[in-house]
Amino acid sequence: MAFKHKHLLGIQDLTASEITTILDTAESFYEISTREVKKVPTLRGKTIINLFFEPSTRTRSSFELAAKRLSADIVNFNSNASSTSKGETFKDTILNLEAMNPDAIIIRHPCAGATHYAATFSRSNIINAGDGAHEHPTQALLDAFTIRQQKKNFKDLKIIIVGDILHSRVARSNIFLLGKMGARVTLVGPPPLLPREFEKFGVNLDFNLDRAIEGADIVMMLRIQLERQAKNFFPSIREYRNIYALTAKRFRRAKKNAIIMHPGPINRGVELSADIADSAKSVILKQVENGIAVRMAVFYLLLGGKDREAFD
Amino acid sequence: MAFKHKHLLGIQDLTASEITTILDTAESFYEISTREVKKVPTLRGKTIINLFFEPSTRTRSSFELAAKRLSADIVNFNSNASSTSKGETFKDTILNLEAMNPDAIIIRHPCAGATHYAATFSRSNIINAGDGAHEHPTQALLDAFTIRQQKKNFKDLKIIIVGDILHSRVARSNIFLLGKMGARVTLVGPPPLLPREFEKFGVNLDFNLDRAIEGADIVMMLRIQLERQAKNFFPSIREYRNIYALTAKRFRRAKKNAIIMHPGPINRGVELSADIADSAKSVILKQVENGIAVRMAVFYLLLGGKDREAFD
Amino acid sequence: MAFKHKHLLGIQDLTASEITTILDTAESFYEISTREVKKVPTLRGKTIINLFFEPSTRTRSSFELAAKRLSADIVNFNSNASSTSKGETFKDTILNLEAMNPDAIIIRHPCAGATHYAATFSRSNIINAGDGAHEHPTQALLDAFTIRQQKKNFKDLKIIIVGDILHSRVARSNIFLLGKMGARVTLVGPPPLLPREFEKFGVNLDFNLDRAIEGADIVMMLRIQLERQAKNFFPSIREYRNIYALTAKRFRRAKKNAIIMHPGPINRGVELSADIADSAKSVILKQVENGIAVRMAVFYLLLGGKDREAFD
Repeated sequence: MAFKHKHLLGIQDLTASEITTILDTAESFYEISTREVKKVPTLRGKTIINLFFEPSTRTRSSFELAAKRLSADIVNFNSNASSTSKGETFKDTILNLEAMNPDAIIIRHPCAGATHYAATFSRSNIINAGDGAHEHPTQALLDAFTIRQQKKNFKDLKIIIVGDILHSRVARSNIFLLGKMGARVTLVGPPPLLPREFEKFGVNLDFNLDRAIEGADIVMMLRIQLERQAKNFFPSIREYRNIYALTAKRFRRAKKNAIIMHPGPINRGVELSADIADSAKSVILKQVENGIAVRMAVFYLLLGGKDREAFD
Repeated sequence: MAFKHKHLLGIQDLTASEITTILDTAESFYEISTREVKKVPTLRGKTIINLFFEPSTRTRSSFELAAKRLSADIVNFNSNASSTSKGETFKDTILNLEAMNPDAIIIRHPCAGATHYAATFSRSNIINAGDGAHEHPTQALLDAFTIRQQKKNFKDLKIIIVGDILHSRVARSNIFLLGKMGARVTLVGPPPLLPREFEKFGVNLDFNLDRAIEGADIVMMLRIQLERQAKNFFPSIREYRNIYALTAKRFRRAKKNAIIMHPGPINRGVELSADIADSAKSVILKQVENGIAVRMAVFYLLLGGKDREAFD
Repeated sequence: MAFKHKHLLGIQDLTASEITTILDTAESFYEISTREVKKVPTLRGKTIINLFFEPSTRTRSSFELAAKRLSADIVNFNSNASSTSKGETFKDTILNLEAMNPDAIIIRHPCAGATHYAATFSRSNIINAGDGAHEHPTQALLDAFTIRQQKKNFKDLKIIIVGDILHSRVARSNIFLLGKMGARVTLVGPPPLLPREFEKFGVNLDFNLDRAIEGADIVMMLRIQLERQAKNFFPSIREYRNIYALTAKRFRRAKKNAIIMHPGPINRGVELSADIADSAKSVILKQVENGIAVRMAVFYLLLGGKDREAFD
């Protein structure tokens, strides 16, 4: 049951049993955020650094609140104000922060592999908060927590992930996780955003959402980054929406008790219609809530909270 | 004596007795910030979010310090770094933050009514930190706290509010509050910035500062936003200053023990002269100090601190 | 042994014995950052403001972590988001922050003398985190802490400081400190960046690094600000590097047990070669680590922690 990893770099490194350990631990932390006093002394005196080389509201703050609810000290860095603009290398930035004796460094970086590179020389626990189009493990873990909350287990669930698969670290981490947990995953999107090579991950590919959604237990929509994909990968938002947006009509083809997921922030009227976003079948806000519990669990397992239960 | 509101959206919603409750509560918190140890455990384990869609130094930090001195956890968001720029709606931003189980969300937004809208669907306590040209209730409350500190009560005080009334949420919240508390308010400013319709609030209007200031107990100056009004609403800063700036000479027409107020940040040499800003009659910095006590009181009354006095 | 100063504005104001007091105090705090629980309650309930009018990663965060590890509350301000852009004077900004009853205000400002000016009217403890090209006292103190850690004492050490002396507050604070502690300092750089008037500080000047480095105990490299100096003060980065960069070959002329220092962030391949930066003789990251201990000591000595040892 012990968790042997020093870092959380990606789902690819975890076994099904380790994933289960994280989800079980998250369950025990879930309740804390619903209390009158949402704080436990578990990680008092630990220092955590939030190092973001890309802008973020929800992920940064979710980590920040998770740390504070465990009584850890957390310091935020954004790349704008940082030394990177002064010509310092990524490695030197990490080494300098590390010289301040943090226990963990959470890193979001536009380059795939940045956090893995940091882990090769870092004494601190490195937590990947998204590296390029590679992995975003805490997102996949909170998605898994939400799925388990709703469906009890993963075995034989039919899960479709819809949208810009090519650029999505969320998709990639979910593909790894859901495969390990025994779910059947189908990726759906327009051909330029759904490369054939994804088949090697043991998933199905489908360019036709109306067909793929038949009998799905989970419909996981990805965000269309209007500023980017619209220009290069499909003729128009309108055309994309006609074929790949989740609408109430389309969702009726899924299983009766199917649920709707999205990593946020959502574009109403683009990848999903407003009635779908607000539907009782949507667990999008549950995902956000569960993010705190999952990140508390990750901190706890990596930072050695195990031995400190009796603290205070 | 109990405080029945869930949110603090505006002064318009409060009775005189509720305003008095807030001011009395603030009085009991005032002393904490002057102690050696400026911190009480009253709101330990509560989560407060500072959500600012407009830049701010003093208001954001005043809320932040008030929260920290009550031992609450507070997380800051600025709209720049936020998901708003990614196309997320205001409502979705609030709902997403709320999914993280905060106890209160402080909102500053350029649109009048934004916080009222948030309150229609929010489970958290919403605190209005300024919504467009509508209300800025904690500013009016700290102004009231300062007036009471100096003048004991409001009854029959002659208070003039001078400047850009049209665009000022500070003026509006003060008009409501001072009216409820029994003061006599005169609004002063150039005709384009002082619309006739303000008469419906039971105040006097005067375009002539030299006349309006006669016998005033309180002279409350508003900030001229150089970047905006100067261009559109009066011929030149110089002309505005000649007619509406508070100078030592002009201030002599007020009551002997009159005081000078300003919500800050001040423009020395624009809406008030430097000697007036630094005068012994100015309580501008007292207002800033009192802001902490008033915001601690608001947190305490809204977040249910009442039942937790014995905590720790 | 008591520390009599209210502010820490510059090394120029300190005696050798006061510097020793700070370093001794820092030694007692050094160990806290290496513990499992990196936090002591010494300054619980104190409020510290980090007021930065220039961007900074490491200095701001080093102060922030030092404050948090002493359990003080710390609030960050950056000039971008601040009222300065709204036309408020520097003095009014300080007075307004001070009205919130902070115990200390840390100030970084592009103008030399800004913190000294603040100290003339401030009730809080002012800590200079860098004022123009004038002083950066906590940097010199952490450098001194590092030197003492490596060399036991300062007496008769040969220390060379290399680079853009003219614009460097780090150089200036180090010149003052090292002189008071009895070290022999030589400043090295190209003539336009090494004005003759520095001789009045009792140091040697040398335009020739190959000569100056002979027999040095400490080689302290300064950062070349590529965006500025390259254009105006020397023909090209390449030429500067040929003459003034620290390379392994050049470093061999120093004493056998000489060490390499740099205030960071470093420009690999500009003022020092990559192998020098990563050399076992480099104590650059030690400097960063020691910064936390030194800043904890400064907080402790200024904020009256002395009388509160038994607190909690």
